[in-house]
Amino acid sequence: MFSLFPIDNGVCASEGFFCDGISAGLKQDSMPDIAFIYSDIPCEVEALFTQNKFQAAPILHYKNYNTPFKTNFVLINSKNANALTGIQGLKNIEEILQELQKLHPQIHNPIMSSTGVIGVQLPKEKIIQSLQKIHLRHKNNKQASLAIMTTDKFNKTLAFEVLLKDKSRFRIGAICKGAGMINPSLATMLCFITTDAAIPKEDMKPLLEEASKTTFNAISVDGDTSTNDTILLLSNGKSKAYNKEAFLFALTQLMQHLALEILRDGEGSTKLVAFEVKGAKSKKEAIKAAKALSQSLLVKTALFGCDPNWGRIASTIGASGIECDPNTLEIYFGEVCVYAKGQIFFDDDNEKKAAKILQQDSYKITCNIGLGKESFIAYGCDLGYEYVKINADYRS
Amino acid sequence: MFSLFPIDNGVCASEGFFCDGISAGLKQDSMPDIAFIYSDIPCEVEALFTQNKFQAAPILHYKNYNTPFKTNFVLINSKNANALTGIQGLKNIEEILQELQKLHPQIHNPIMSSTGVIGVQLPKEKIIQSLQKIHLRHKNNKQASLAIMTTDKFNKTLAFEVLLKDKSRFRIGAICKGAGMINPSLATMLCFITTDAAIPKEDMKPLLEEASKTTFNAISVDGDTSTNDTILLLSNGKSKAYNKEAFLFALTQLMQHLALEILRDGEGSTKLVAFEVKGAKSKKEAIKAAKALSQSLLVKTALFGCDPNWGRIASTIGASGIECDPNTLEIYFGEVCVYAKGQIFFDDDNEKKAAKILQQDSYKITCNIGLGKESFIAYGCDLGYEYVKINADYRS
Repeated sequence: MFSLFPIDNGVCASEGFFCDGISAGLKQDSMPDIAFIYSDIPCEVEALFTQNKFQAAPILHYKNYNTPFKTNFVLINSKNANALTGIQGLKNIEEILQELQKLHPQIHNPIMSSTGVIGVQLPKEKIIQSLQKIHLRHKNNKQASLAIMTTDKFNKTLAFEVLLKDKSRFRIGAICKGAGMINPSLATMLCFITTDAAIPKEDMKPLLEEASKTTFNAISVDGDTSTNDTILLLSNGKSKAYNKEAFLFALTQLMQHLALEILRDGEGSTKLVAFEVKGAKSKKEAIKAAKALSQSLLVKTALFGCDPNWGRIASTIGASGIECDPNTLEIYFGEVCVYAKGQIFFDDDNEKKAAKILQQDSYKITCNIGLGKESFIAYGCDLGYEYVKINADYRS
Repeated sequence: MFSLFPIDNGVCASEGFFCDGISAGLKQDSMPDIAFIYSDIPCEVEALFTQNKFQAAPILHYKNYNTPFKTNFVLINSKNANALTGIQGLKNIEEILQELQKLHPQIHNPIMSSTGVIGVQLPKEKIIQSLQKIHLRHKNNKQASLAIMTTDKFNKTLAFEVLLKDKSRFRIGAICKGAGMINPSLATMLCFITTDAAIPKEDMKPLLEEASKTTFNAISVDGDTSTNDTILLLSNGKSKAYNKEAFLFALTQLMQHLALEILRDGEGSTKLVAFEVKGAKSKKEAIKAAKALSQSLLVKTALFGCDPNWGRIASTIGASGIECDPNTLEIYFGEVCVYAKGQIFFDDDNEKKAAKILQQDSYKITCNIGLGKESFIAYGCDLGYEYVKINADYRS
């Protein structure tokens, strides 16, 4: 048994972690655009990176470390993704981190992360100049979470304290960025998670992958990830406490909350919708169908108009490529069944009930394929007017 | 050698074909909503249908005919797709066509086609009432092309006369409907093609499929087709003229023109863009990458803003799943190279040249993957403000 409760300080809530956000003059009005995370003892580290074949320079730099390796520092800049920048992009990282280590010799195997414009070299001089503002003992989670933002409308952070049965406790916290544009497609998702749990190295990657499946992956667009997407987990074991089940639960809750925050930050979106597909023949098909629904622009626009358009939902399932049959399919808006096994239930009364569900800010649409036992929930938001303007104007 | 030139009368240009559009009172203001195509001698027929697993009742009805079969009549209604309508949907078709054959006993193996709202039974009585207005000898191509429209802003039709080397000639013509919403996704594409060419039955399907690949399929969204998409080809051989190469050329030109018309009819779209992918390892990959580009909402919004955002183009290729390498990739806006093999060519001068290309109404973006020999051109349009409003309000 264990319990968890939210606490302040996000990515520097865990013992031994520090963070801050500073301005290198990359954003307007001296808004913070460089963040760092520091641990006063070395950390185990694991990362999940984008599937995009053109992984940005910071990802290539990370991969150049001989694994397994320990680190105590992450440097993050916004406004520039350092992607498609070739050899110069990597050299710039090395130069910046060398200057950093001159200032703070205790920094070991530093990791860099970037988000912003693609195809432009880093403003290296400005970044190097700003390193002097780094104070390793600062605990300014808010500044760090603001510094990593690009198109986000609000900062995203959360931390938990987890109390185990034997009264030992550990902490886990994170900052992340990303805005659910049409989907979170190609708007980089970065998530930095720190913990003082005494998690064994070999648990880190499997638990990270497990938690991702139902959270960040449930809002993502397969085949449409940015050059920079990163989830990084740093653990320094300082609390000496650990329980695998409790850690996975806390990690999942953390990532779930942050993933939904990313969705809520969609331009012009007004609704958060869970698309549940049940009764699919395979897990792969359940995921495919659920994501097809959460990504269907015709479905999203109907939801924006609060229109219980079950026809578009059925058609999207039919087009998704999974095995399905109109005679076994069922569709629900919330608890209201509008179609089941070849029968349409959409008289005036039911249509009104369904429309009422769609007036809510948040609800679930369920499709039971009726051919198997597998299920998946994908999350999506509706599509509003704002989205086009922001995308047409932003060079990223 | 052969030559072709455009002629009037679209789908009833070919000898022995007749057509018209009438009103069954399904649309407002007595606009035509029922179309028919009739041939005074029986026709060979081939069809390409949607890949959607929930094929609409009219498609199921067609498939119930014992193939091969000849037909001389196609009845098309708009405002209702007769999709997800179960057994009743099929019965309604049978009843309507029976009434039709009572009025015109010479009608043989009639085909029905529908487009419009999904999940609502056909307004059968109104349709049956309207059948009396059908005059088999009418040649009203414009009315027919208006009758099949749903969200289209303009009717789409074209016909060619083809002159062969031996001075023999045949005709081929069509009407179609579809509007390039975000993509033509889930806005049904219907295309009815008639010809008096003496095309052998066994050539019809292969040539239809061949011509579709670079035309209708080059604007479509894989995994996102409506319940009703149909391309129908009727041939009555009346001209006694035929040449395979000439027919394929004419058919392809016809479908190309109509496919681009569908794209131009996208809500709020202002530009027509060809996305050419060259140097891919396989044809499948060339198609995958080209379609990823033509469908990428971040690319489409950048194009709307006339922004030569090559970073989004590169990132979309990298996310598409094909084999690619930043060190072999080249990107061109028109003839202007902005990125090649790890080098960025985007100084002020080049950026201005690229931006000028993007001011045009129509242009090509080329990506050379540099890993193979296969290529494909997908067509897309930009994404404007109008699109959300129309989709949120339309129950279809």
